[in-house]
Amino acid sequence: MKPIGEVNPPARILLTPGPANVEPRVYRALLAPVLGHLDPDFLRIMDDVQVLTRRMFVTENRLTFPVSGTGSAGMETAMTNLLEPGDTALITVAGFFGERLADMARRTGAEVIALESRPGTPVDPQQAREAARGKKIKLIGVTHGETSTGALNDLDAFRQVTEECGGLLVVDAVATAGGVPLRVDAQRLDVCFTGSQKCLSAPPGLAPFTAGPRAEAVIGKRKTGVTSWYFDLTYIMKYWGQERTYHHTAPISMIYALREALRLVEEEGLEARWERHRRNAQALATGLEAMGMGLLVAPPHRMLTVTAVKIPAGVDDRKVRGRLMEEFNIEIAGGLGELKGKIWRVGLMGASSTQNNVLLLLAALEKCLLEEGIKLPPGAGVAAAVQAYQQAPVHGEPAQGEPAAAR
Amino acid sequence: MKPIGEVNPPARILLTPGPANVEPRVYRALLAPVLGHLDPDFLRIMDDVQVLTRRMFVTENRLTFPVSGTGSAGMETAMTNLLEPGDTALITVAGFFGERLADMARRTGAEVIALESRPGTPVDPQQAREAARGKKIKLIGVTHGETSTGALNDLDAFRQVTEECGGLLVVDAVATAGGVPLRVDAQRLDVCFTGSQKCLSAPPGLAPFTAGPRAEAVIGKRKTGVTSWYFDLTYIMKYWGQERTYHHTAPISMIYALREALRLVEEEGLEARWERHRRNAQALATGLEAMGMGLLVAPPHRMLTVTAVKIPAGVDDRKVRGRLMEEFNIEIAGGLGELKGKIWRVGLMGASSTQNNVLLLLAALEKCLLEEGIKLPPGAGVAAAVQAYQQAPVHGEPAQGEPAAAR
Repeated sequence: MKPIGEVNPPARILLTPGPANVEPRVYRALLAPVLGHLDPDFLRIMDDVQVLTRRMFVTENRLTFPVSGTGSAGMETAMTNLLEPGDTALITVAGFFGERLADMARRTGAEVIALESRPGTPVDPQQAREAARGKKIKLIGVTHGETSTGALNDLDAFRQVTEECGGLLVVDAVATAGGVPLRVDAQRLDVCFTGSQKCLSAPPGLAPFTAGPRAEAVIGKRKTGVTSWYFDLTYIMKYWGQERTYHHTAPISMIYALREALRLVEEEGLEARWERHRRNAQALATGLEAMGMGLLVAPPHRMLTVTAVKIPAGVDDRKVRGRLMEEFNIEIAGGLGELKGKIWRVGLMGASSTQNNVLLLLAALEKCLLEEGIKLPPGAGVAAAVQAYQQAPVHGEPAQGEPAAAR
Repeated sequence: MKPIGEVNPPARILLTPGPANVEPRVYRALLAPVLGHLDPDFLRIMDDVQVLTRRMFVTENRLTFPVSGTGSAGMETAMTNLLEPGDTALITVAGFFGERLADMARRTGAEVIALESRPGTPVDPQQAREAARGKKIKLIGVTHGETSTGALNDLDAFRQVTEECGGLLVVDAVATAGGVPLRVDAQRLDVCFTGSQKCLSAPPGLAPFTAGPRAEAVIGKRKTGVTSWYFDLTYIMKYWGQERTYHHTAPISMIYALREALRLVEEEGLEARWERHRRNAQALATGLEAMGMGLLVAPPHRMLTVTAVKIPAGVDDRKVRGRLMEEFNIEIAGGLGELKGKIWRVGLMGASSTQNNVLLLLAALEKCLLEEGIKLPPGAGVAAAVQAYQQAPVHGEPAQGEPAAAR
């Protein structure tokens, strides 16, 4: 029988579109002793997590809690509770994750109209307006940041269309919440969800979720039952709501970790955090362009937490990513679907979004590209990024591995 | 704004039907650095988890992996993938968790025949035989241990009925796998699932799952699509199988924890672990009976990992459980549904199943009952348990807080 030793993964620098690096304080929270899911002390911790999640989403929504699954579980919770056979939904499909949202919407038996865009561009809200004409639209589902291309959809424009057609606005903020400006109540989003392992920098396994009163009313008026028991909000909210009626056992240790991650978000301040993500993404973009590489997405539509850069002609995608991992311990992501081999995707999310990581990646990439035989202006990427930082000085940016409290 | 401090839960002695106490080595595994979900090092860790999960279930099933959710997510994965409209399923309903399985089965659109039993008794397999007569049965779903009453259903008898009627045998082993004898291949179970936080003693958040070739064939022949994307085995197995195609991000840290918990199972040895659970449950039962309390379930049908004891007349359920928690830091569970206020449920699972915990609980319960005005033969519970242990000596039982490796 093959012996299996102690788990001993390397400590990578995670510059993918998630998971992001996890701060030491969050790891420490994982060590808090597991409680029973109805222990009064655990119920108080659930209260805290709900308060902190509301602050992170900038919402007063009662129905705010972490779904017991990864980001896609949040997505499925939204679709499976809001849609039923006979409904019509408009879904933005700007890439792989829009496709996923449309797939989940279709599985509910609803009619789904996919609003597609060219890879690297956001979906034109006018498309939604035209598709909605003469139809009763139950919801418009919008991927805020399309992680597969790095394009950002315009929530405010889609909200306007939603209000014109009277539907709900459902927003997949898996790759943006905590990293890109997002205010659920002020932007009148009816439903919004994210993942614990992206800009919130906890380990993967929870999907913070919020739904407003209009969404609650829609769920209350369903004609058919929800096909999923695990994701049935009516029951889940009896556990997370006042009643505290047992539904399923919450992932206790992960709830501790999310609580600590949300405390870190609050200590940094949401606006400071958004600004940190913006500044680092901008320095990275400036650096990559100075190295002669083109970005996939035009400046006004970049999502900032994920940057898609075109792989220079003649460069072996897998070889460069392999070298980054083996020589520099850095993971970045490749393209998905038709963008496979054509782009790299660099995530700068949560604790991974630091000046140190930007400068190191540009330097490491320079070495990798030189070894692939690409001609580059020496040091140009790092120099341009340094200059970008000089123009937008870094205040209180968390160093990798340094707890935010020490800032 | 209400300040929210560091998470600081008390270290309880968890004697509920889950979550169980977590061993220090498992907590330590949670601290291993988070990797990307497609990192070659993480893929090797996934391989290990699959190997260890197969050994725990005693199966060669290819389709063996942990579902990214709590035990109920494993249950939903089974029902949602195997059943579709037009199918007929027989489901044992010996209590609350049988009801849950039946509820999930109904949500698939299948016809569900509930095989009910009186609280505290297992379901009579003859009932299944009669219900199956003249019907095409897609599956028989059996709750191995009904956690709400402490009754154990007879898997071998249900397997025989399943073979007579040609369906699949689906077993909910959430509260038994790792604690009660269970061998998936030898007992010819087609599908079996459990929860990480029960007899495996990891934190809650994963549902180890296995399905054999007959179940795979049934899934392959579905006429309708699976309504859930998150739990769709066809896609999940492209990630956990040879292809390693991204489906959703696995709960990385929890996978580390489960891996360590399964390593501990292997180090102890499955049969030694089953024997430890049996011995401690037996000592507890002997002690409770010596204190004059009756058990809900007759000896041959007791599930051993959860013991249901009748609350003596005149005793305030909530007061005693509150005192156990406040004065002794021990959590036990109350009854569910019609058994509320009538029974206590004591879980002795995984790291919580120790001689120390049995003796301490009996002593603490004696004090609580005396304070409730109940007359008891002094010290009788502890004395009877001590005697039971003397007759069945303890070999290498893990002490609470002592890593199994130190044994």
